[in-house]
Amino acid sequence: MSDSVKIALIQRACSDDVGVNIAGALGAVEEAASRGAQFVVLPELFASRYFCQTEDAALFDLAESIPGPITSATAELARRLDITILASVFEKRAAGIYHNTACVVTADGDLSRLYRKMHIPDDPGYYEKFYFTPGDIGFVAHQSPHVTVGPLICWDQWYPEAARLTALRGAQILCYPTAIGWLPEDKQELGEEQLAAWQTIQRSHAIANGVFVASVNRVGHEPSASGGIEFWGHSFVVDPSGRVIAEAGSGEEILVVDCDLSMIETQRRGWPFLRDRRTDAYGGITERWLGDADRSGADRSGADRADTAGVDDIGASDANQAADAKS
Amino acid sequence: MSDSVKIALIQRACSDDVGVNIAGALGAVEEAASRGAQFVVLPELFASRYFCQTEDAALFDLAESIPGPITSATAELARRLDITILASVFEKRAAGIYHNTACVVTADGDLSRLYRKMHIPDDPGYYEKFYFTPGDIGFVAHQSPHVTVGPLICWDQWYPEAARLTALRGAQILCYPTAIGWLPEDKQELGEEQLAAWQTIQRSHAIANGVFVASVNRVGHEPSASGGIEFWGHSFVVDPSGRVIAEAGSGEEILVVDCDLSMIETQRRGWPFLRDRRTDAYGGITERWLGDADRSGADRSGADRADTAGVDDIGASDANQAADAKS
Repeated sequence: MSDSVKIALIQRACSDDVGVNIAGALGAVEEAASRGAQFVVLPELFASRYFCQTEDAALFDLAESIPGPITSATAELARRLDITILASVFEKRAAGIYHNTACVVTADGDLSRLYRKMHIPDDPGYYEKFYFTPGDIGFVAHQSPHVTVGPLICWDQWYPEAARLTALRGAQILCYPTAIGWLPEDKQELGEEQLAAWQTIQRSHAIANGVFVASVNRVGHEPSASGGIEFWGHSFVVDPSGRVIAEAGSGEEILVVDCDLSMIETQRRGWPFLRDRRTDAYGGITERWLGDADRSGADRSGADRADTAGVDDIGASDANQAADAKS
Repeated sequence: MSDSVKIALIQRACSDDVGVNIAGALGAVEEAASRGAQFVVLPELFASRYFCQTEDAALFDLAESIPGPITSATAELARRLDITILASVFEKRAAGIYHNTACVVTADGDLSRLYRKMHIPDDPGYYEKFYFTPGDIGFVAHQSPHVTVGPLICWDQWYPEAARLTALRGAQILCYPTAIGWLPEDKQELGEEQLAAWQTIQRSHAIANGVFVASVNRVGHEPSASGGIEFWGHSFVVDPSGRVIAEAGSGEEILVVDCDLSMIETQRRGWPFLRDRRTDAYGGITERWLGDADRSGADRSGADRADTAGVDDIGASDANQAADAKS
């Protein structure tokens, strides 16, 4: 593996026509390769409109098995161009088990390097819990001939745990195929703030872990009965210091970026965060909430002593009073 | 507890004279209180120069027990002004056991609400591992009459785990007393980038956890044989959406900021990240590195199945080859 890799982010709009979407995306991959890209990242669920704006059981028909049309066509392209592609598919794993899946496709045709979205949102306009069974193969890093890829998907980007675990598996670049945009009622008041927060938290994953981050969004307005979503684009790449080294606008774009992978080593020497992690004290991360630990009577054996010893005296006392008041 | 709290960040320079430093800091707390502040945060180790620029056993004399001069004077001030103060002290816990400690001081005089710095840096100019025994009471949230405080200290700010665990304990505001600045050889080339990364990762803690964040730095140049450190100031407060709502410059300043604590609830409803955490799959967070799991033969029983099942086939194969080559 070279110390440098040229990556491409395919920022596209999606139409109602699945065939057109796939052909357009694969054409963009070819163009990216012709510009020297060795690793190409496609946006989340690029084959279709973002169907999660409504809950409709008929839309499970959009899902495909792996191998299936998208992954097979992608593998053929990867073989012909000798590149690596991160493809996002609505995966039918079994009757009634569907995943939001990313597949690291390399020239060897192996389609087993999957990541199945772990964090599933469910918010107005983003009804993903209806469609996607949460992933059960955890956080992964997949080696390719060009770069060790840490695939993650959209909502995952808000979770430092996902970035950390993927980086600890050896990922050199965290990749987030994404479909995020503004609801019509939000854009005016919150639009700028939401976009800034989205970029900020992903930059923080680069900083905390000393890795590259690439986030690839779709663009365009996709209608729905409640006004639809305006996907905001702004795909970007961050280097291990947290600097944004390339950023798209709000239209269709192929962003080709050189990533000097030796920066990972340099950055981790200069800011040796991984050296000082208090792995002895992070056990509580596997808990939902630690503020009611004294009340719940939950088994705390999984949490580390160093982390559970520091219970707030006043808080515990208040908690006991609250418990008393209820009894 | 009201839904709103007025907080103050005391950004100051520190001289060679401990008495002057303490009197100046306490005077600034009084001024902040006169401007309505109910919760006041002091910078890291404000009583002295940042002595960790050199390793000198005589400097352990700077440490004090708790209660001791700083915490007792702070408690008296908290009582008289009816406020809460986050004080940072070089704590002598026992002969040979010294901590970098923050104490949440309230009007009731209780000095048991401690946090002892968990992540200890050791880098050119910041030789903290010489002075500070790593904290052993984990991550805590301390209730006060004004706000539930999540005390953390400087180097902790680079660790998403620290922010998460403190927020999960119920903290409404993560507070980072800090001493960070530029080495002379870094400022020209890396200065802007370092400051941006420092602010970015702390904004990300606000976003990921839906909490307020306050970071309080010192200012001024403090000399050393190798050129000293220029502490960069820029203390700031972030709201739970990740927006910087107040920021100091690079000189001495008292930053007084209204924090509407009801934003925590609003933000967590709008961006329900805590709802979707995959606590079943975060076990690997307590590991140092997951990239060599197949080689090390380490006991993986502590890590969750969902997180350990997704081992990279190619990576494992490469790892086996590497192991073979060595045998």
